[in-house]
Amino acid sequence: MLITHATILTMNAQREIIEDGAIAIKDNRIIGVDKTSALVERYPLEEQLDATDKLIIPGLIDTHVHLAQAMIRGCADDMELLHWLCDRVWVLQGNYTEDDGYVSARLCIGEMLKSGTTTFLESMLAHRYGFDGIARAVQESGIRACLAGIVMDIGTYATQENSMHPGMIESRETSLLGVLDMHSKWEGAANDRIHVWFGPRTPGGVTSELYREMSELARQKNMGITMHLAEVEADKAFMQEKFGLSPVLYADSVGLLGPRSVMVHMVWLNDTDIAKLVETGTHVSHNPSSNSKLASGVCKVPQLLAQGVNVALGCDGGPSNNDYDMIREMKLAAIIHKAVSLNPVLIPAETVLEMATINGARALGLEHEIGSLETGKKADLVLIDFERLHTTPSINPVSTLVYAATGGEVDTVLVDGQIVVQQGELVTMKEDEIIAQANKHAQQVYRRAGIHIKPKWPIR
Amino acid sequence: MLITHATILTMNAQREIIEDGAIAIKDNRIIGVDKTSALVERYPLEEQLDATDKLIIPGLIDTHVHLAQAMIRGCADDMELLHWLCDRVWVLQGNYTEDDGYVSARLCIGEMLKSGTTTFLESMLAHRYGFDGIARAVQESGIRACLAGIVMDIGTYATQENSMHPGMIESRETSLLGVLDMHSKWEGAANDRIHVWFGPRTPGGVTSELYREMSELARQKNMGITMHLAEVEADKAFMQEKFGLSPVLYADSVGLLGPRSVMVHMVWLNDTDIAKLVETGTHVSHNPSSNSKLASGVCKVPQLLAQGVNVALGCDGGPSNNDYDMIREMKLAAIIHKAVSLNPVLIPAETVLEMATINGARALGLEHEIGSLETGKKADLVLIDFERLHTTPSINPVSTLVYAATGGEVDTVLVDGQIVVQQGELVTMKEDEIIAQANKHAQQVYRRAGIHIKPKWPIR
Ligand SMILES: [Zn+2]
Ligand SMILES: [Zn+2]
Repeated sequence: MLITHATILTMNAQREIIEDGAIAIKDNRIIGVDKTSALVERYPLEEQLDATDKLIIPGLIDTHVHLAQAMIRGCADDMELLHWLCDRVWVLQGNYTEDDGYVSARLCIGEMLKSGTTTFLESMLAHRYGFDGIARAVQESGIRACLAGIVMDIGTYATQENSMHPGMIESRETSLLGVLDMHSKWEGAANDRIHVWFGPRTPGGVTSELYREMSELARQKNMGITMHLAEVEADKAFMQEKFGLSPVLYADSVGLLGPRSVMVHMVWLNDTDIAKLVETGTHVSHNPSSNSKLASGVCKVPQLLAQGVNVALGCDGGPSNNDYDMIREMKLAAIIHKAVSLNPVLIPAETVLEMATINGARALGLEHEIGSLETGKKADLVLIDFERLHTTPSINPVSTLVYAATGGEVDTVLVDGQIVVQQGELVTMKEDEIIAQANKHAQQVYRRAGIHIKPKWPIR
Repeated sequence: MLITHATILTMNAQREIIEDGAIAIKDNRIIGVDKTSALVERYPLEEQLDATDKLIIPGLIDTHVHLAQAMIRGCADDMELLHWLCDRVWVLQGNYTEDDGYVSARLCIGEMLKSGTTTFLESMLAHRYGFDGIARAVQESGIRACLAGIVMDIGTYATQENSMHPGMIESRETSLLGVLDMHSKWEGAANDRIHVWFGPRTPGGVTSELYREMSELARQKNMGITMHLAEVEADKAFMQEKFGLSPVLYADSVGLLGPRSVMVHMVWLNDTDIAKLVETGTHVSHNPSSNSKLASGVCKVPQLLAQGVNVALGCDGGPSNNDYDMIREMKLAAIIHKAVSLNPVLIPAETVLEMATINGARALGLEHEIGSLETGKKADLVLIDFERLHTTPSINPVSTLVYAATGGEVDTVLVDGQIVVQQGELVTMKEDEIIAQANKHAQQVYRRAGIHIKPKWPIR
């Protein structure tokens, strides 16, 4: 396939932008990225997909997703975190069946694909959501995913004595061994689109022994680890009291840090913590919408980047964001650090686009496969249509993408060389069906959980 | 006309939500808001517009817009404010012709209508943008507007000695008398959809004498005043040195505050300033995207609301936001104060929806005409379609609207009883034509200004 006449943000090492550019694809790989004239000459017989006036970017990489939370979007707005978690999110998720997990995964994946996300890292996939069903949803949809299965052996929340919902509690056996089982079954499946990671709960939900055992296994099997860490200020006090260490130094002490680790949120860091991240090559997933909405605080992204930490971007979940649109997330990431630092040149648009593409690929250990548009890489790419009022004029495609656009301008999406979104419509899934099923299953989950959400205002 | 079977966020005094609700409209007024069954019984012969599964909200009110800046969207990202203003925005705007002003106004109005804004307050409309053309654009498009004409008699920027572009300099005669002229010509035009206000430049661009003269005239003629104030920290030092007063107290000393005044940004306020706003009944327009992107800081909205100041919402302009989508602006307004205050219950979704509707109407002195859906008010309303993946499930329409939706979900818009957007398409203007003209005129403006914006990355 030959996609022609586009403006291409390659995100290659030189960050080249190709005007009137083309991309040649064979099977699931990019075999050429160049001026249209050059590629047409090289592949004169190839069928052309005309992308005149469109922008092509590498598929966006969301490094922190909870698939199961798409179906409970908006279940807990404007609430304290513990109330949010213990009285809503955990109770609802504790009432999921495997069917619910599958339906929510499809809703989430459909939303991600339509807004230009081609790869995601799922965090803390619990047993009861049905790992096989979720892996099947990934396989069928055509998206690329790292699925981190939950690991835990304590049933309480990190900073408080609130008990979890019984449905959310697992043991070393069901969780750790469960993930290993998933790994042997699904790692590399779907033409290498699926990878299986460890997704341990935060300290307080996992003993130090289990963290060490898991970290050792991860190293042996070259599996990734992703975990929420240093999300709220209370995490610091909890770790100090329990272990006499900061969250980052505790994580290091049990083997959690390293170049195959993506630590999520990372809002409450001191200079020693940041130095430790640099030293260990640990990646950070920055989730500005979630950190803002849940009032966790503002991650020190400018300092992290300046020190050389690889920072990627994530949308988190339906109750904390409440969308899975990486283009909207990029804008917030670009502007919030300016606001709190009173410095308008911090985190320019180019930097957030790196966070959402090539940095994400590095975080997932897939920088040789995805994250930029280069010969030899997998064909994960997004065509964006700026022929809209709110993206007119577009005098700089990076600016228009980050500051003016939303996922709604995504026109066509390819993952692994396969078209999964065409002219704004899902190809591999039926949107109407996803919506109908999600509404039905959401109703059932709320009913089983005994939670009835009403608007705060009177209803006539 | 009878719109039936919708969920209606009335924003009336009780903030009632009507399920399976209907709205009856006669000419430009709402004549009934009730359950569908009740209104169908009352108006059995009326033609029905079926809004099943749609949400109806009052038309959104953007209290800070620069029409002329739509066409220079993205001209100055990630830059210091003075550089942003003196080397880009002023130079480009100083090269506008009246045709450019008209074309940019149409681009901006089209974007606003399509994303659910039915009324806006334009700030600092300069002579050279062509007031008559812009008023005509408002008239033709069907939108409702308060147009504040620029008032100034000094040609420098408030906090520095940077000279303005010659094209941006006006005198007492051209500005103050020009606005009075516009007022006599356009106030109440287009079936009372157009109002004319004073839009003075910030202190440093206007002498105290002219502020006093203008404020007196505004009171005599019951005209509104809108002005940027206390936007950046440097404004405080400038005012302290020049007048020995805070920005707010200086504004009060020259008659600028009062119930017909909308002060914009208002980031740098102390307790005395806030008390003065309460005492004078001055309204505040909060612009979180602009304040973030330009690194002005974070306005103390929670404190302002707690003290009883009426706070409305605004998108500002193409180089500072860079969109005019009030639904996206609502989300940022809801989450940014949580982030910086570490308090997740501050500024709930309901509060930002008030800011974007009824508070906006109060700020414009139009609270008896617009801002809520009630019998007797003007028929300015927006139908929103939540049958999308990213708005599924919608268990609380206020949450879905504020936290998950964008302007892209707007389906139908009525202003003054007239349909201006239908199934997501402009009715009163041709979108293709607006885009083509905006691109052409933008090119001409950049060329005349001698400004050539390029991406920061190498172009092949
Ligand atoms: Zn999370
Ligand atoms: Zn402004």
